[in-house]
Amino acid sequence: MAGTDSTQPALAQASNTGGPAIILVKPQLGENIGMVTRAMLNNGLTELRLVKPRDGWPNPAAEASAAGAIEVLEKAKVFETTEEAIADLHKVYATTARTRDMTKPVAVPHYAAKEMRAFDRSGQKVGVLFGPEKAGLHNDDVVLADTVISVPLNPKFSSLNLAQAVLLIAYEWFQQGVDVPDEELLLGSSPLATKDELLNFYKRLEAALDESGFLWPPEKRPNMVRNLRNIFQRAHLTDQEVNTLHGVVKTLQLGPRVQKPKE
Amino acid sequence: MAGTDSTQPALAQASNTGGPAIILVKPQLGENIGMVTRAMLNNGLTELRLVKPRDGWPNPAAEASAAGAIEVLEKAKVFETTEEAIADLHKVYATTARTRDMTKPVAVPHYAAKEMRAFDRSGQKVGVLFGPEKAGLHNDDVVLADTVISVPLNPKFSSLNLAQAVLLIAYEWFQQGVDVPDEELLLGSSPLATKDELLNFYKRLEAALDESGFLWPPEKRPNMVRNLRNIFQRAHLTDQEVNTLHGVVKTLQLGPRVQKPKE
Repeated sequence: MAGTDSTQPALAQASNTGGPAIILVKPQLGENIGMVTRAMLNNGLTELRLVKPRDGWPNPAAEASAAGAIEVLEKAKVFETTEEAIADLHKVYATTARTRDMTKPVAVPHYAAKEMRAFDRSGQKVGVLFGPEKAGLHNDDVVLADTVISVPLNPKFSSLNLAQAVLLIAYEWFQQGVDVPDEELLLGSSPLATKDELLNFYKRLEAALDESGFLWPPEKRPNMVRNLRNIFQRAHLTDQEVNTLHGVVKTLQLGPRVQKPKE
Repeated sequence: MAGTDSTQPALAQASNTGGPAIILVKPQLGENIGMVTRAMLNNGLTELRLVKPRDGWPNPAAEASAAGAIEVLEKAKVFETTEEAIADLHKVYATTARTRDMTKPVAVPHYAAKEMRAFDRSGQKVGVLFGPEKAGLHNDDVVLADTVISVPLNPKFSSLNLAQAVLLIAYEWFQQGVDVPDEELLLGSSPLATKDELLNFYKRLEAALDESGFLWPPEKRPNMVRNLRNIFQRAHLTDQEVNTLHGVVKTLQLGPRVQKPKE
């Protein structure tokens, strides 16, 4: 997963508002804050807000772990209270693993991200609250949110570190904005073979196999031919690969040799 | 996101095979291997395979960072080659960010996870290859895979660390197996109010406002009533909250007081 590839497909739609603000409430370790900026920038988010970071601000440990995402760190805004940190937002989510004694909509990340995109498209500003590493968000902060986001995880081992929690939310946000097919055939330097090229190869192979007596007895031939064609059909051959296979059949037809053929 | 909550909904369907094996090819830092086990166990995966870990095996640094996921680490199997590590598998995915000069299906994590579940349901064993931290997978390893998984990320900053890459794939696998509604109203200790309780409150509020002259002039009354009802309708009130609101209206009707009312 290493490396940055500028040939990746561009975003399908730009964000109207810059995307959700990531709001860390009383984060403890500077290293985690730095890792959060990387998870954010991986997913195109750049607006970090900090409520009372334990070790003050700026924090050299955060800078060390932010690495290439230092631009996000440098723009981070610091607030005294969660209320101040969310004052300009229209919709706020709170991430929490625990069930609270509170009546509140709870969404999975995928659904929340879809909803955030809808708010974003209409120019409304969204933010996501993340609590301190150990304790998670205080109920007074959860109350300030419109919706709780809860990540379904292994109930026997559901503890995520802060940067991983941010990564999952930011990832779901980003995925909602990319226009990448679910699956596509990545092509190398050669285009796919045309059906004509494929049929030529099939016929050459079948002629060679007729000659060698492989497609025998005659009543089984049609089914054997279908099965063979189907193998190559599933391989989605390029025209270069069809040429290679022509060579393979030709060479095999010539039979074993003592010496290597001259180039 | 801290904490483990045993009240979380259980898996919708158990895995037939234990889920995909996570295969780290030539991982460098023990700390990353430990973090990988945590990301795996968060998402219910327990089968880790290591191809030629740089610093040998076992590795104390991996144990230190595995924390609660030490069980995954202890079961890890070590192989000399990628070919040996995948020998018993039926379907192999390779994670890579870069476009290779290779003809191969490329899937997004969400789609690949869906496909993995289908293989798993039919009892076929799946594995996912992850390359060394710096270089990523060698082309000879990518060739061994049936499908490439590529995570759409910010093209200007797409570098994920090893544990984060594993987290995203394992997360998508797990999400395919949980049966959690996209959004639901988490209830506290009180059930939702019945429509009768709501209507009683609406009528009490409207009577109080009629008395105080707020719903005036008469021709505007129907629309004002609809708007007011709609506010409370959207709040999905519990019966306890309806009781609280009755108290609020009653108290406000009594007007300002010099002294606090006696309990």
